[in-house]
Amino acid sequence: MRVVTKIGEMQNIVDDLRRDKRIVSLVPTMGYLHDGHLSLMKIARQNSDIVIVSIFVNPTQFAPHEDFGSYPRDIAGDTKLANSAGVDFLFTPEKNEIYPADYATFVDVDEITEKLEGKSRPTHFRGVATIVTKLFNIAKPHVAIFGQKDAQQALVIKKIVFDLNFGIKIIIAPTIREKDGLAMSSRNSYLTKEQRQESPVLYESLTEASKMISGGITDCLTIKEKMIKLISMKQSAKIDYISIADSTDLEEVDVLQKGGTYLISLAVKFGNTRLIDNIIQTI
Amino acid sequence: MRVVTKIGEMQNIVDDLRRDKRIVSLVPTMGYLHDGHLSLMKIARQNSDIVIVSIFVNPTQFAPHEDFGSYPRDIAGDTKLANSAGVDFLFTPEKNEIYPADYATFVDVDEITEKLEGKSRPTHFRGVATIVTKLFNIAKPHVAIFGQKDAQQALVIKKIVFDLNFGIKIIIAPTIREKDGLAMSSRNSYLTKEQRQESPVLYESLTEASKMISGGITDCLTIKEKMIKLISMKQSAKIDYISIADSTDLEEVDVLQKGGTYLISLAVKFGNTRLIDNIIQTI
Repeated sequence: MRVVTKIGEMQNIVDDLRRDKRIVSLVPTMGYLHDGHLSLMKIARQNSDIVIVSIFVNPTQFAPHEDFGSYPRDIAGDTKLANSAGVDFLFTPEKNEIYPADYATFVDVDEITEKLEGKSRPTHFRGVATIVTKLFNIAKPHVAIFGQKDAQQALVIKKIVFDLNFGIKIIIAPTIREKDGLAMSSRNSYLTKEQRQESPVLYESLTEASKMISGGITDCLTIKEKMIKLISMKQSAKIDYISIADSTDLEEVDVLQKGGTYLISLAVKFGNTRLIDNIIQTI
Repeated sequence: MRVVTKIGEMQNIVDDLRRDKRIVSLVPTMGYLHDGHLSLMKIARQNSDIVIVSIFVNPTQFAPHEDFGSYPRDIAGDTKLANSAGVDFLFTPEKNEIYPADYATFVDVDEITEKLEGKSRPTHFRGVATIVTKLFNIAKPHVAIFGQKDAQQALVIKKIVFDLNFGIKIIIAPTIREKDGLAMSSRNSYLTKEQRQESPVLYESLTEASKMISGGITDCLTIKEKMIKLISMKQSAKIDYISIADSTDLEEVDVLQKGGTYLISLAVKFGNTRLIDNIIQTI
């Protein structure tokens, strides 16, 4: 595995690879790699000749009051993990390499970014869209892999690729979970022991919603009330949002329709740690 | 010359060309081609193996009250001209090919877009930045050529390429003028006979400013007053702005400094026809 820190070097490498007709994949990450990331790398490997993993804690997708400063970092550990996973290139640029002092260009996606995570974190998706556009231009992949845990991000990225004509295949990989159901996330490392014990309630509430829907309940308020009840039983949990929405345009729905596909998603704070999770269900 | 109307076809063509190590250039235009455009194509030819010219009257860079509907179009004449100029591919997509019904992704450049043209036309550069990003992803050029007449656009495009890591060489070509000094523009076709006779005053006022500066005058108010006086003598002319600004950040200046490079630019309406022009001067 070769570690690359400069944009120009990364671009030259990929230009050569593409001229040699190699299929290139990119797995963009913010590092502090876990089994969820490793599953993305495995899928990348299955879909390409050359796997590039980027590690960059992207400041523009954090609001000033959020956890950019404290976001967990372990570049030495990540390098070992990526190497063991058979990654070909690890792209780990410095902040100034990506955002020089007079940086001024941003990518904005309208509509779907205004809901759910975008409502709670108004500048978040501008940051995501911008860094992903830059990473696509730097790593020039044929294929890029993202995780389903960030469901709305997945939709936003697909929209960017389609609208800006990137011609990149986007693969969304299933959420990888701990044994007790907690979706893997670098932010899980923030949890206290008590919060960690209570955190599986996110997936429990999603599973309960899924069961209710399978059992024929179509009234979203009834489903959400059950989810709220379950989560509220946990002392350290504070709900940011619970949503049942159309899985393509993220419009909130009141009554589920036969044939519809829905994104059931939530954001819950455990102390200062904000976790998200979701499932997609077709009726 | 091959005419291409579909995005996917254009991308496949360029992917093949790049794999064959051909150097590809792009000249993005809104059509109604004139000698200014032809000079860009000539420069493209000198800097690449394959010249792609795009013709697309981009709706997102026009405000609702502007001249998108009436902007002059002559695709048959343009096709002949481009063919004679030795262009390899003419990319002429329909509006829906570029902006499908649910289009939602835009590129924004902060700061330099807020001045001059951006002040008069607040949504203009969002449209320019978005279409240029799309055309770069569609035609995947090594080199792209734009005209100096749109001085601020040239700066915005260079900024996008740098910030979003496009890795494309941008060449800014000199303004081509009619014999009487009027900068060539598709919009000149709007001018009535009287307006056309008065329109050379734009370049005359710029030339006068240049002479004053060469003669040692450094006070920008004095220079601008002289320019205003010249233009105001023309009955059909109405000044939108006259600017003397730093040529890199477009900050307005009051007193010219030795060693500085300045963009002297203006926008003037002749009836409903808004024309722009500029010169760059180093002291």
